[in-house]
Amino acid sequence: MTRLASSTALIAIALVLPIQIAERPAAAQTAPASGGPVDAAIIEDLVAANRILAGEGVVDAYGHVSIRHPANPNRYLMSRSLAPILVTAQDIVEYDLDSTPIDPRGGVSVLERFIHGEVYKARPDVGAVIHSHSPTVVPFSVTQVPLRPVLHAASFLWVGVPVWEIRDAGDPAGATMLVRNGTLGKSLAAKLGDKPVALMRGHGNVVAAPNVQTAVRYAIYTEVNARMQAIAISLGGPINYISAEEGAAMGRTPADAGRAWDLWKKKALGK
Amino acid sequence: MTRLASSTALIAIALVLPIQIAERPAAAQTAPASGGPVDAAIIEDLVAANRILAGEGVVDAYGHVSIRHPANPNRYLMSRSLAPILVTAQDIVEYDLDSTPIDPRGGVSVLERFIHGEVYKARPDVGAVIHSHSPTVVPFSVTQVPLRPVLHAASFLWVGVPVWEIRDAGDPAGATMLVRNGTLGKSLAAKLGDKPVALMRGHGNVVAAPNVQTAVRYAIYTEVNARMQAIAISLGGPINYISAEEGAAMGRTPADAGRAWDLWKKKALGK
Amino acid sequence: MTRLASSTALIAIALVLPIQIAERPAAAQTAPASGGPVDAAIIEDLVAANRILAGEGVVDAYGHVSIRHPANPNRYLMSRSLAPILVTAQDIVEYDLDSTPIDPRGGVSVLERFIHGEVYKARPDVGAVIHSHSPTVVPFSVTQVPLRPVLHAASFLWVGVPVWEIRDAGDPAGATMLVRNGTLGKSLAAKLGDKPVALMRGHGNVVAAPNVQTAVRYAIYTEVNARMQAIAISLGGPINYISAEEGAAMGRTPADAGRAWDLWKKKALGK
Amino acid sequence: MTRLASSTALIAIALVLPIQIAERPAAAQTAPASGGPVDAAIIEDLVAANRILAGEGVVDAYGHVSIRHPANPNRYLMSRSLAPILVTAQDIVEYDLDSTPIDPRGGVSVLERFIHGEVYKARPDVGAVIHSHSPTVVPFSVTQVPLRPVLHAASFLWVGVPVWEIRDAGDPAGATMLVRNGTLGKSLAAKLGDKPVALMRGHGNVVAAPNVQTAVRYAIYTEVNARMQAIAISLGGPINYISAEEGAAMGRTPADAGRAWDLWKKKALGK
Repeated sequence: MTRLASSTALIAIALVLPIQIAERPAAAQTAPASGGPVDAAIIEDLVAANRILAGEGVVDAYGHVSIRHPANPNRYLMSRSLAPILVTAQDIVEYDLDSTPIDPRGGVSVLERFIHGEVYKARPDVGAVIHSHSPTVVPFSVTQVPLRPVLHAASFLWVGVPVWEIRDAGDPAGATMLVRNGTLGKSLAAKLGDKPVALMRGHGNVVAAPNVQTAVRYAIYTEVNARMQAIAISLGGPINYISAEEGAAMGRTPADAGRAWDLWKKKALGK
Repeated sequence: MTRLASSTALIAIALVLPIQIAERPAAAQTAPASGGPVDAAIIEDLVAANRILAGEGVVDAYGHVSIRHPANPNRYLMSRSLAPILVTAQDIVEYDLDSTPIDPRGGVSVLERFIHGEVYKARPDVGAVIHSHSPTVVPFSVTQVPLRPVLHAASFLWVGVPVWEIRDAGDPAGATMLVRNGTLGKSLAAKLGDKPVALMRGHGNVVAAPNVQTAVRYAIYTEVNARMQAIAISLGGPINYISAEEGAAMGRTPADAGRAWDLWKKKALGK
Repeated sequence: MTRLASSTALIAIALVLPIQIAERPAAAQTAPASGGPVDAAIIEDLVAANRILAGEGVVDAYGHVSIRHPANPNRYLMSRSLAPILVTAQDIVEYDLDSTPIDPRGGVSVLERFIHGEVYKARPDVGAVIHSHSPTVVPFSVTQVPLRPVLHAASFLWVGVPVWEIRDAGDPAGATMLVRNGTLGKSLAAKLGDKPVALMRGHGNVVAAPNVQTAVRYAIYTEVNARMQAIAISLGGPINYISAEEGAAMGRTPADAGRAWDLWKKKALGK
Repeated sequence: MTRLASSTALIAIALVLPIQIAERPAAAQTAPASGGPVDAAIIEDLVAANRILAGEGVVDAYGHVSIRHPANPNRYLMSRSLAPILVTAQDIVEYDLDSTPIDPRGGVSVLERFIHGEVYKARPDVGAVIHSHSPTVVPFSVTQVPLRPVLHAASFLWVGVPVWEIRDAGDPAGATMLVRNGTLGKSLAAKLGDKPVALMRGHGNVVAAPNVQTAVRYAIYTEVNARMQAIAISLGGPINYISAEEGAAMGRTPADAGRAWDLWKKKALGK
């Protein structure tokens, strides 16, 4: 706990994710060690992220959001398998980067948690990962029309949005379309590369960002941009996309991102 | 009641659907026999299904969902004619497979109940049937563009989605567009064949599944997929549909369907 | 009051629309005579119609619905100028067919009330009129694509949907796009002819039906059909519209319209 | 206060925007003088405008609306940087036309406030300005399809809707897409010219009107019109736009605008 910078109250996520102790020798032999307790305010933001994404229509009953453990970069935190709008602090589970739960008593794990673990392995810069079936983004995953930024708030897409084809991963489990293991997760993370967003063909997308607030913003404005781009395409004619220079400039001088997070969190948590 | 596996409370659907008893000899001569009382939890799921479909925008004031009687495969249960969002356990009526109500006092029956009866006759594997005017599915019923899966969650559509043309049924009542009798119901069931979903031209669709939870999921994701496919088509160019191999693989290894049902039911019943 | 068939309570719409009496000689000289008090249940349905149309997105702050006076075919009843969602029984005003209010104290009248008066004059079969800017119907009024039924519930459109061009009315007030007088109202009613729906170019549409329940249903399913037809057109290729034979057959044998009205009214009035 | 025509209560916006007084000499040297207290009813309408635009989907967490100071045309009033749905009277800040806050203690200012200040400088006829990322308007900003009125309620667009290209402003800060200074604001105001609406490429639009009620109406019906025009274009074929003569005629004889404002304000403020 001394590693935590914040002085706000800690919630005992150890209640569901206890650090290995002598009383539980069997689990101690196989389960990885916890990264330690996490500040309640950080967990609250992760819970809020789940509900925000549901409230904004980015996720429905499925989709998930994780954060890297603030004290141990080899651990991440994510809800057990549960519709995002229902997630509470008590549902947050800790995983190592192979996506093995620290405490096997934490409930049923998300089947596709390997998306998260493998992105954290490949991207030390990433502090939060979101996977969703964002409804207007999926159509871009099944056509040859690249998703590109038409709205300045989605300028982060200027670096390009790769489309991951699970058929190319060469894993037999890939026929089920789900990222069921580390091999498939690694393949997706490789396609994502250093980008903030990658599409998953016929499935959804993955968003990676330095922190959960930014990841949520990216996920929401990727959906908003997809809607606007689809309308622009239906209007016909050439489209004047956000340029590389503009995208880079906006990335260097971010605007007032806190305003959106404050609103979304207030709506999601009612406070 | 001894046939019921569950130990949860029974609700007396016999209140509205009494088993034939000596006190009602006139009805006993013409009405079919009841399949017996049904576990309250099963009725609750049927009620939830009605409300879920309304909440998700699959049905409006019309549309209906039925389940096969758990104790007697020659009976099915469905609400009397009522907007789905208003359905309660007291509105559930029992029918034989000719769609004759067991208790004629059960209220006005759904005009198109023959959809249900005839699908149950033709498909022993089916435990639940939904008929809706799912708004984005209807356009696919009046064009020559096949509804095909673009989203993994709708991969069950990979087997093909037949379009039923009521004009081809050769029944004079067909000009009214409604499935008003067993002949029309049989024609629709034949077009459905062994598929989970068939479109009804200029009208809506029918969904058949082993149980009500799956039928609801199929109905919802058929609508979601239709929206995504329509957008993909408007983007232009070839579309990368879920393949037969993928559809088959997902059918063999279903993902976490319970998560959606739990959320939907909670939202629909407020518990 | 003896002319009223119903035995339900009367609401004193005479409070806002008093019958001419000796105490108000000045008004008596110019205002037309009232058609008499109206059953509260009828007013309630008119109020419900206003709120239903708002709840279903057919009207926003504008749009209006009227009924012909049940006791006097030369009078009609409509809210004073007010957003439909806010209308109560106290806002209902009585007009003669020249759209002159019976009681000039009834508040500001709807500017375009002449739509209603002139349709009632021209169409003895009509008992209710709706004017709206139904959002997906307007686009059909400014293109050359005819609005035609793709959904059985909108089969009443099979007779054709005329588009009224206010420029053709030859009235100088027409440049303001609004039906500001009887001449423009007459022109619109002539274009409507014997049809249930006519579009008003760049403006909206008018719906005429035997009663308010049917008019509301027509207005809502005209919007629903417009959405479905727009999507069908975007899918591409020929469209299989509801045929004349089907439209006529459905008109002769109406389906379960009461189910929708019961739901809509319950949602609109909360009872 | 003697300059105020209304006798309604004043709210002490001086609490957050105090007039320069002797006790604060340091601020007095640099901050511009206040235009004086403002009638509470006027502030209430500005607060309502913020919430209305959020409720109608014109703004999300971003976007802002201002009014010119009623007593001093060289001052304007706008919320501090805050999601519009959250704005209260206490958040309103006063600026001079260089967009310098009168009281630097008023909270973080909106980054793009220069849009407002420069439009007020260039347009003495303007009493209210709105900037939004109105979702269906943005697509028109990135294509070559002009936004034109298809609905009479948006006839004010008949004069043309210029599209501002920030790249053409020749300001290095323009690469960030935001109106971060007076130079960019001036460039935008010049493109707006004497029009009510200008689009900002890849960003949103600016609306200018004589008063806040009109500005809100313009902003909402610009979005509504964009939706209708996009659908009309997708239907195919020539579009019958509101003509110049009609636009001019409607501008001269406005319809019942108060009805919409009353409804919107009631919904936004719950009274």
